[in-house]
Amino acid sequence: MTTLPDATHHSLIAGEPAKGTDGVVRAIDPARNEETGPEFTTLAESQEQAAAEAAAEAFGIYRKLTDADRAAFLTTVAENINAAGEEIIATAMTETGLPQQRLTGELARTVNQLKMFAKLVANGDHHSVRTEPALPDRTPLPRPDLRQRKLPLGPVVVFGASNFPLAFSTAGGDTASALAAGCPVIFKAHLAHPGTGLLVAQAIAKAVADHNLPAGVFSLVYGRGTTVGQSLVKHPAIKAVGFTGSRFGGTSIMATAAARPEPIPVYAEMSSVNPVMVLDSAIKGDSTALAEGFITSLNGSAGQLCTVPGLIFVPGDETGDTFLANVKNALAETAGVTMLTPGICSSRVQGEKRLTSMPGVTEVGRGTDGQTANALGPAVFSTDVETFLTHKELSEEIFGATCLAVRYASAGELQKVASRIEGQLTATLHLDTEDPGDVALAADLVELLELKAGRVLVNGWPTGVDVGDAIVHGGPFPATSDGRSTSVGTAAIDRFQRLVAYQNLPAALHPAPVHEDNPWDVPQRTDFLSQLR
Amino acid sequence: MTTLPDATHHSLIAGEPAKGTDGVVRAIDPARNEETGPEFTTLAESQEQAAAEAAAEAFGIYRKLTDADRAAFLTTVAENINAAGEEIIATAMTETGLPQQRLTGELARTVNQLKMFAKLVANGDHHSVRTEPALPDRTPLPRPDLRQRKLPLGPVVVFGASNFPLAFSTAGGDTASALAAGCPVIFKAHLAHPGTGLLVAQAIAKAVADHNLPAGVFSLVYGRGTTVGQSLVKHPAIKAVGFTGSRFGGTSIMATAAARPEPIPVYAEMSSVNPVMVLDSAIKGDSTALAEGFITSLNGSAGQLCTVPGLIFVPGDETGDTFLANVKNALAETAGVTMLTPGICSSRVQGEKRLTSMPGVTEVGRGTDGQTANALGPAVFSTDVETFLTHKELSEEIFGATCLAVRYASAGELQKVASRIEGQLTATLHLDTEDPGDVALAADLVELLELKAGRVLVNGWPTGVDVGDAIVHGGPFPATSDGRSTSVGTAAIDRFQRLVAYQNLPAALHPAPVHEDNPWDVPQRTDFLSQLR
Repeated sequence: MTTLPDATHHSLIAGEPAKGTDGVVRAIDPARNEETGPEFTTLAESQEQAAAEAAAEAFGIYRKLTDADRAAFLTTVAENINAAGEEIIATAMTETGLPQQRLTGELARTVNQLKMFAKLVANGDHHSVRTEPALPDRTPLPRPDLRQRKLPLGPVVVFGASNFPLAFSTAGGDTASALAAGCPVIFKAHLAHPGTGLLVAQAIAKAVADHNLPAGVFSLVYGRGTTVGQSLVKHPAIKAVGFTGSRFGGTSIMATAAARPEPIPVYAEMSSVNPVMVLDSAIKGDSTALAEGFITSLNGSAGQLCTVPGLIFVPGDETGDTFLANVKNALAETAGVTMLTPGICSSRVQGEKRLTSMPGVTEVGRGTDGQTANALGPAVFSTDVETFLTHKELSEEIFGATCLAVRYASAGELQKVASRIEGQLTATLHLDTEDPGDVALAADLVELLELKAGRVLVNGWPTGVDVGDAIVHGGPFPATSDGRSTSVGTAAIDRFQRLVAYQNLPAALHPAPVHEDNPWDVPQRTDFLSQLR
Repeated sequence: MTTLPDATHHSLIAGEPAKGTDGVVRAIDPARNEETGPEFTTLAESQEQAAAEAAAEAFGIYRKLTDADRAAFLTTVAENINAAGEEIIATAMTETGLPQQRLTGELARTVNQLKMFAKLVANGDHHSVRTEPALPDRTPLPRPDLRQRKLPLGPVVVFGASNFPLAFSTAGGDTASALAAGCPVIFKAHLAHPGTGLLVAQAIAKAVADHNLPAGVFSLVYGRGTTVGQSLVKHPAIKAVGFTGSRFGGTSIMATAAARPEPIPVYAEMSSVNPVMVLDSAIKGDSTALAEGFITSLNGSAGQLCTVPGLIFVPGDETGDTFLANVKNALAETAGVTMLTPGICSSRVQGEKRLTSMPGVTEVGRGTDGQTANALGPAVFSTDVETFLTHKELSEEIFGATCLAVRYASAGELQKVASRIEGQLTATLHLDTEDPGDVALAADLVELLELKAGRVLVNGWPTGVDVGDAIVHGGPFPATSDGRSTSVGTAAIDRFQRLVAYQNLPAALHPAPVHEDNPWDVPQRTDFLSQLR
């Protein structure tokens, strides 16, 4: 079932349907392995230029909206998506196999993060204004009047994720933060959920029209393979890129962006195995509950979450044996759920074959397969630290509910691993926080893991990312292309801004956020250094 | 004259002299075109690995200093440089040809910016702490305790500038901001002022020893050509690069950094012609004073400043003729001063030859040559907007006191130029701020120029960069490699930090800046979103 009319649909460039000349695609219902929904035409490489040009033109007006107007627009986007929520969820269920409850939560998150950015923009915090009034009598040189703020970078191309058809797709975190910053967005639709994408795009386009904004503020483009995307990244009007997907896809875009005559920033969220380190004292508590919590986190959304625990370090001794026995029991009671696409499912099968073909890797346990197609049960394998550190491929992500348990013999082995692993989105410790020995060990590990991950957790599971002011969803390469930033939360807006200063401008020429009358009532930090000792 | 002993000197790796095996270099006194000062051995490519390894080891300790300890260290660096000021200035005068007054001012700036970062670090603002305490009763999901802060990236390689042997060299802005962030620094010495570099490096190394810090916190390396520098950029221990120099040098380093297995950020400040637009009303005032101010800005430090006005837009009518006649008079009364190196001087001569060989470019006037070697007089050439926009090479930087005056026929031509020029460090407007027509035109131009430059000025000259909280010394490519940032002022510290969040850590595991007891008394932004409407 889909609520889109059963006609052929097209890209939505600056509010108008744009018929692609590169053929058509249809979604696949992964629960049935059958095509579903209408056809979508895909653009040829030359056709997406129009979206870039419209975005460049729209930027001139969109970036100059008052904070209040931009906040109102973001709120309307949120409301329009909410209003179309039933159709969007129904379409997404068919196209992605994700259950209604998950998609209902994801829609709420998508709406809420748009509203969060509306609040932030209405406050004006994102301008990061700093002023230093003139000091004509300063010696040896007078100080000029200086006013610093952040400006939007310009049109942004966003590549959506397969695994969050709403919250990290058409109106997801990258789109919301770029629009909040004042950047028009060209969204490269994910072809695994083309109908969901179009419904959300229509909600955004309606908000653009509702607010009489230039239509080029938002476009949705369908294109097969990577050609159209890479071509957009090369377009001189594009000033930044947001991406969520594979390491291969992300590094390709990084290379394209770096090779431009004018290189541009790329924010690619790519791959992470999210190590979890289970210390002795954690298992001495309720080891059964710990194992069940682990498998629930592993199998949720079929393990297709950027922060799924794909690597867990377990003591090599008998307490660890007990824990893994509990993991095996938990797996036996767990059924697989439909994966997003047949391709993702078969990649996971291949990945597990590579794992088990390696000497020193054994299977701990496996859940049952679900009733639908592509519903592979969750699986846990095990090896030891030496094997893990010797074979780099054991630290590569297998997307889905597959986890490698690595048995460690000593605290020293854990520290060695923590200092050698690649960059991660998250790193997690489980311990009894009343156990002085493990707290001391955890303190050492936090110091190592904070250098490797964007978020460090204790006694929780990394899946489930809170959207707020203090969250970080990022991390050193290869977790992301730019570990300085976050793609979730208020700080995500910073990715699409740059600094500019104004020196000795008369008040008549001051942009509103830095104006001494502060007409938008934005936070201004004035003469900060003189307030310090 | 130099105050370094007349022996052979070496790189200073982690506090110890490291004899290079790739030959020796000596400085050249550009005022006499003669070698001066002692010999310095240059490292072979393999030899600088030791500096990277020492920096990586030092990072583990250095990054964990308390804010107070790191601030005290930065203050000692400043004091040690100040204490050696006389020797440093004498050596720099011989090696660079810059006059004592300029170097005295530059030394003060170098010391003051270290002290500014010490103040900033002591305050703790740079941690950018945000906290969101747990909300166990939030629906539909409880909120975990989340604490966000910024962490130093790791060891940084800094390439110094020829034109600021102190403020943008060994202990200059990049070094100061990286050390302030908690990053060890490996400084690639500029071979135009090797003795100055060593004296400053010794002052830093003494501060490292004074504070009992790991010696790898700072190293100075001499290497010929780009081999040693590029090799350091490739070293896996290096996590960021600061660079000030040519577009060719900067883009080479960008390419190397992007091609690493783990790409790293590069902050390269490269080239800028700093357009100045003189509106009609500015000339109707004191056109003679305006012309004199222009030539003073152009010829200061022999025009060898990143922000020198290399491009000035002048009305095509008679008022513009009058202004350029005044410029010619000002030039006639101005003598050239010694340039930094014979190579820089001959590049400038070649650049001016290319200019005058182009059809449509004529010479407006030229100052006299100075009495020393390499003291080419300042020169101004002119062309029209059409010629300027047709020949891209006319917008390329000629380093030194060379400026191209472009005659414009209309406000429309100025707007066209403002929308087409490449990224710049600065853009300047001159106008009578009581003239309503020119204020309206200036408002349009500010909106165009703020997209192209890091700093927009009115009725001043771009040379002379104030070091404070609201300054921006940056700008879109090719002015810098990363227009989001600044290399001068407090915000420069941000370039060497990344975000990390801690979720549900017990207080015993909280790093000090995010700890609820706030033992370092740092600014913490708590529950920000709940305070917004």
